[in-house]
Amino acid sequence: MDISSFLQFRDVGRHIDDLETPVPVIDIDVVERNLSRWQERCDALGIANRPHIKTHKLSGLARYQIEKGARGITVQKLGEAEVMADAGISDMLLTFNVVGRQKLDRLAALVKRSAISVVADNHDMIAGLSDAARVAGRDITVLVECDTGAGRNGVQSPQDALRLAQAIDQPQGLRFGGLMTYTNAGQRMAADAFFIEARQLLNRSGLQASVVSTGGSPDMWKDDGLAHVTEYRAGTYIYFDRSLAVRGTCGYDDCALHVLTTVVSRPTLERALVDAGTKSLTSDLLGLEGYGVVHDLADAKIYTANEEHGYLDIRGLRAKPAVGDRLMITPNHVCPVVNLFDEVVFVRGTEVLGAVKVDARGRVQ
Amino acid sequence: MDISSFLQFRDVGRHIDDLETPVPVIDIDVVERNLSRWQERCDALGIANRPHIKTHKLSGLARYQIEKGARGITVQKLGEAEVMADAGISDMLLTFNVVGRQKLDRLAALVKRSAISVVADNHDMIAGLSDAARVAGRDITVLVECDTGAGRNGVQSPQDALRLAQAIDQPQGLRFGGLMTYTNAGQRMAADAFFIEARQLLNRSGLQASVVSTGGSPDMWKDDGLAHVTEYRAGTYIYFDRSLAVRGTCGYDDCALHVLTTVVSRPTLERALVDAGTKSLTSDLLGLEGYGVVHDLADAKIYTANEEHGYLDIRGLRAKPAVGDRLMITPNHVCPVVNLFDEVVFVRGTEVLGAVKVDARGRVQ
Repeated sequence: MDISSFLQFRDVGRHIDDLETPVPVIDIDVVERNLSRWQERCDALGIANRPHIKTHKLSGLARYQIEKGARGITVQKLGEAEVMADAGISDMLLTFNVVGRQKLDRLAALVKRSAISVVADNHDMIAGLSDAARVAGRDITVLVECDTGAGRNGVQSPQDALRLAQAIDQPQGLRFGGLMTYTNAGQRMAADAFFIEARQLLNRSGLQASVVSTGGSPDMWKDDGLAHVTEYRAGTYIYFDRSLAVRGTCGYDDCALHVLTTVVSRPTLERALVDAGTKSLTSDLLGLEGYGVVHDLADAKIYTANEEHGYLDIRGLRAKPAVGDRLMITPNHVCPVVNLFDEVVFVRGTEVLGAVKVDARGRVQ
Repeated sequence: MDISSFLQFRDVGRHIDDLETPVPVIDIDVVERNLSRWQERCDALGIANRPHIKTHKLSGLARYQIEKGARGITVQKLGEAEVMADAGISDMLLTFNVVGRQKLDRLAALVKRSAISVVADNHDMIAGLSDAARVAGRDITVLVECDTGAGRNGVQSPQDALRLAQAIDQPQGLRFGGLMTYTNAGQRMAADAFFIEARQLLNRSGLQASVVSTGGSPDMWKDDGLAHVTEYRAGTYIYFDRSLAVRGTCGYDDCALHVLTTVVSRPTLERALVDAGTKSLTSDLLGLEGYGVVHDLADAKIYTANEEHGYLDIRGLRAKPAVGDRLMITPNHVCPVVNLFDEVVFVRGTEVLGAVKVDARGRVQ
């Protein structure tokens, strides 16, 4: 089935010049190519592809990722999992600690109607997860989250991973599912060393890490440190963005999503103001200069931004954009941009296919 | 009428411990106090209060601000104006250039059903605004936006202000309404000098700036440079935030909105992870260190953040927060935080009044 048949389009005109700005515009052919390339790589490596839907937050695209060969999906919040379950997706990994009565009640409801696995990185969570399993009447698979260098969540050593796995593996409705980490660029070998030691400890104790799950887009094409990984959680690869183009993970041609914007003011020869500010582009810099670039204008930068204004540096341009011109901004970080908009628009070149509701937008709870 | 009667509450429990996290929690008594203080000051100064609704994006609060004495409201995007018009608000100033066929069509429709004024800072816009007035069958009042030091939109000199005012003041359905600026902290005296000169030029040409409109919260309590101002557009004063508390514009007790969050992990003695990341707090730093503070925990900082994770620095704390603890984060910049959530929750201390839909959320077009 074609990718279009997974998306419910609302009519917003035929040509991108018909679109209201600012608006995220997604080239469907680039999405198709990005998804194919990554699925082929995972298949070649024999690693399960479990894409993170926090990037697109669209149940239709999540279903299409599975149609193309993904094992299941990754979600970061219960609210995202609920939207995806409503769309008929069952195989999910929730990579965020479920803590608190309200959240555990919702997890129990999800466990009843889907094959959702979760993570844990501390012993305080076990009683709650066990209760949720009892309420659901089904076992819950729990992966141990490991801090292998990112300095975020996770047990701090292979010994701690073993202890938590043992605490999970008790007659209480929980099943130890394996190990999970998130790595920043350049941290994959450290994760590999952690996993090797943890698996040895687990094996000696009669436990099996049937899943070893890693995530992070920057190093997605690198082969080192993947020997013991069984599944990969990439998110941004579906759209890519400026931060990954600058790092060389993708080319600018691989960036599927741009924010279409209109020049509304040209007060000086140095700057143009566009109608996309931080409420369209976010303030995410990711170590970059500026809030996004116009690749078609010699990578002219949005050098600063207020909530609804983007300040475009036009000093280096011979042909300066005029009031009314429409420009495509490549955002620094595509994931939080998508989370700002109720709808995104799919296009094929300059042809508009339609607007699609971002059905998991804002599901941070 | 009481502030509560302007808000449509959805039942989400009685006590803040019942709330799902992360969620913006707004103390209604602090809002009431903030609104009263500022209205009293504007009344005492004889300056019209035209609050910017981009901060709260709630038509109910906009109506209440008018009930309490505001002249009208300020909106930054047409989409915000449409939501406010739907709620019965007529007197609006749109402080963003209206450019492009689609936008001008929407402006014409708004002009038909409300008393909306607009701004312009360039001659290219005049034909479009004139067309919109013709379509609407009503004159449109246009203020000239002046760049008095902020380096954003605006004509660059009093002479340019005069020329644009003269171009507006032609028999074409437009009415020159006055001058408008936005000032950053410390720029009010420069704006005053600009306005004095522009008004002299206008008067000599037989034109009257019946409105001189300024905006910007940091200097809201300062008296200098207000002599020629007829209206003030403040937004953040309804909730305040960490950036204004740090600058001394308000105290932490005046911050009405906090992001209620849950500690989900305590991997080391140095850090706790909370369930509010940049998709709840934004990445706005506004020159500050960290993504927000927990004022009740000795101003412990969210020292970094990913999309759904906030990293709380707990090194300085003797009593370290535990997994499951709920904390109130004072965000750096409250306006874009509100724009992330479909609903906010109003409370009085620990008592929950209910959730209210942020009806102009995401209206960036």
